[in-house]
Amino acid sequence: MQQSHRHPFPAASGAQGGESVTSDRDPAVEQEDYRDLLSAQMQAFLELQRGQLHEVSGDAAELVDAIAQLAEGGKRLRALLSYWGWRGAGGAPLADEVVQAGVAIELFQAAALIHDDIIDRSATRRGKPSVHRRFELNHAARGWALDPVHYGQAAAILSGDMCLSFCEEVFAGIAVPNAASSAARRIFNRMRTEVMAGQYLDVLEEVAGPGRPAKQAVERAMQILRYKSAKYSTEHPLCLGGALAGADAGLTASYSAFGLPLGEAFQIRDDVLGVFGDPATTGKPAGDDLREGKRTVLVGLALNRATPAERDFLQERLGSPDLDDDDVMSLRGIIDGCGALSEAETMIARLSADAYRALDLMPVDGTVAKALRALADRAVQRSA
Amino acid sequence: MQQSHRHPFPAASGAQGGESVTSDRDPAVEQEDYRDLLSAQMQAFLELQRGQLHEVSGDAAELVDAIAQLAEGGKRLRALLSYWGWRGAGGAPLADEVVQAGVAIELFQAAALIHDDIIDRSATRRGKPSVHRRFELNHAARGWALDPVHYGQAAAILSGDMCLSFCEEVFAGIAVPNAASSAARRIFNRMRTEVMAGQYLDVLEEVAGPGRPAKQAVERAMQILRYKSAKYSTEHPLCLGGALAGADAGLTASYSAFGLPLGEAFQIRDDVLGVFGDPATTGKPAGDDLREGKRTVLVGLALNRATPAERDFLQERLGSPDLDDDDVMSLRGIIDGCGALSEAETMIARLSADAYRALDLMPVDGTVAKALRALADRAVQRSA
Repeated sequence: MQQSHRHPFPAASGAQGGESVTSDRDPAVEQEDYRDLLSAQMQAFLELQRGQLHEVSGDAAELVDAIAQLAEGGKRLRALLSYWGWRGAGGAPLADEVVQAGVAIELFQAAALIHDDIIDRSATRRGKPSVHRRFELNHAARGWALDPVHYGQAAAILSGDMCLSFCEEVFAGIAVPNAASSAARRIFNRMRTEVMAGQYLDVLEEVAGPGRPAKQAVERAMQILRYKSAKYSTEHPLCLGGALAGADAGLTASYSAFGLPLGEAFQIRDDVLGVFGDPATTGKPAGDDLREGKRTVLVGLALNRATPAERDFLQERLGSPDLDDDDVMSLRGIIDGCGALSEAETMIARLSADAYRALDLMPVDGTVAKALRALADRAVQRSA
Repeated sequence: MQQSHRHPFPAASGAQGGESVTSDRDPAVEQEDYRDLLSAQMQAFLELQRGQLHEVSGDAAELVDAIAQLAEGGKRLRALLSYWGWRGAGGAPLADEVVQAGVAIELFQAAALIHDDIIDRSATRRGKPSVHRRFELNHAARGWALDPVHYGQAAAILSGDMCLSFCEEVFAGIAVPNAASSAARRIFNRMRTEVMAGQYLDVLEEVAGPGRPAKQAVERAMQILRYKSAKYSTEHPLCLGGALAGADAGLTASYSAFGLPLGEAFQIRDDVLGVFGDPATTGKPAGDDLREGKRTVLVGLALNRATPAERDFLQERLGSPDLDDDDVMSLRGIIDGCGALSEAETMIARLSADAYRALDLMPVDGTVAKALRALADRAVQRSA
């Protein structure tokens, strides 16, 4: 799966943005160099931690192995955005400060995923067992005592906590001038608080949503999406990279104008993939979001557009752990048939257009603009 | 419960250390002033966060309410040790830097407790519902959809994550010179990693311990205790406060020589209270540790001293969620009857004596020595 991301600038995307800008550097090459540095620094950091934990006990190093399995994979969208945010604000190519920032952001993402998979009861992540499931399987394989599920959850809660501490440790070690450090810290703090708040609103909507007005379901889903994912996945990393390089208020505003609609489009794409995605490509079982009862924008649109009978069926079956393939097919049929899917695609297109318009006005050089355009293409057109 | 800690310098303790030192200041008064500042700063910080979360959504502020309920209580042992560590290294009385350090440490403790209570399935904490239970009860009271237990756990995982981020946010804001900041950061990082590793070893011992040699049960339990609790509860806060004030290597070593045995004695006292403590005083149900299957030093001693029949009974019943009051009485009878309880008390006495000896040699002024002696007395002689 990871190979498919090694060449993020396919010909189609290059043709779209390549001719109209003056570019003295190929951003694809620079971005691959950054990605390599990021992976090397991530590995070096985790190796150091593994060594320190070995001093405590060989058993404890298992926590780092679980983190490493997750943190060393992934698309690195957030880190790459922080990189181009840094470069757009005049930061030096491949500087250690922004490599460290990328490591911190990707470790935060890994921590969020570890806990998210417990909360969503997801058994797989990126085609492999999720962290709690990994510990659970290990328990079963070794024939240990008491409850394997409980052990798996407990170990994964602690892995996620450790990973969260690791992201802080890396972030706190970034050496930039005081003003830049304060500005970046404000974004980093806000980012974590907002993600956790957004995740909580998501969990709350699963249980409280059915009793709240269906008419505002899209509005509530948009609010969850904005805090849990959109700002966090695009706007904050971009602005954080910029802040580390001393971005001024105008550039930061321009990053937001591009990043927020892009993040919203990115997440609505994610919602669509969570229901209609191919398990072979997404690495997640078909209809996982439906089984978990996620009340996404896509579901909100369907609740508003479906017939009363379809709506009742949706409300009743969403979140049933025993949802089988036939149920998933029926729910997909409703969501597609009522026009919710095509409305979601329209929203993705409109938000993407907003993002690209903001990008055209962004006061950055051609290399950075080209790189951001390619990342935007990937974020909204992806299939995984 | 909190009132009982408002006067931490009882007459007996004063008589023990009061006459032999020259003290120009009453540490009890200074400590109360510090505690008040700490509480005020903690409240102010959480109020600020609550306001920011209200901007996201009124619902999200519930996460801060849950954190506040926990973080605004407690004995504050760790913060108080960091305070006297600071003062012993020449830090100014009641300085903002050490108030913030105390807030960070107490927020870390709250985060650890929130997740620990999920892991240990503890329904109560300090006599009130634990955080996951609080959310679960709220779900039931409002008649929400799906599973209240799952909702409670999910919301508590996120509350704990937020609290963990808060502790970092506060710690990162402490303004001390660079060298002091780096030294304190090293301790803060190590402290968090070790606590999480120790908690994992604790969880692992519950499931893997029954299949491992009983002869080494005490040794394994001591290792868990050292990392999960002893270093974290006493040694690290003391050294961290010292580091912030620029403590030299000699003073730091002296803090460790006092703090580590004190922390070990503190935790063995905790183990004894977890089995024999009075629920009215501890705020925890009787025999909670036995029901969870905690393989503490006390249990390790019993496994080595009990008859084969008693050992089999211990191995079989430890960790049974259905343990009733009669079982708890039987298990207590074995642990006491085989001499494990009295051996644990001997260990507490020996470790306390080591700590007091180190305190006598510590190069700090009389006020600080007196304060540390009183905290040590409380840590090892407590009943809650």
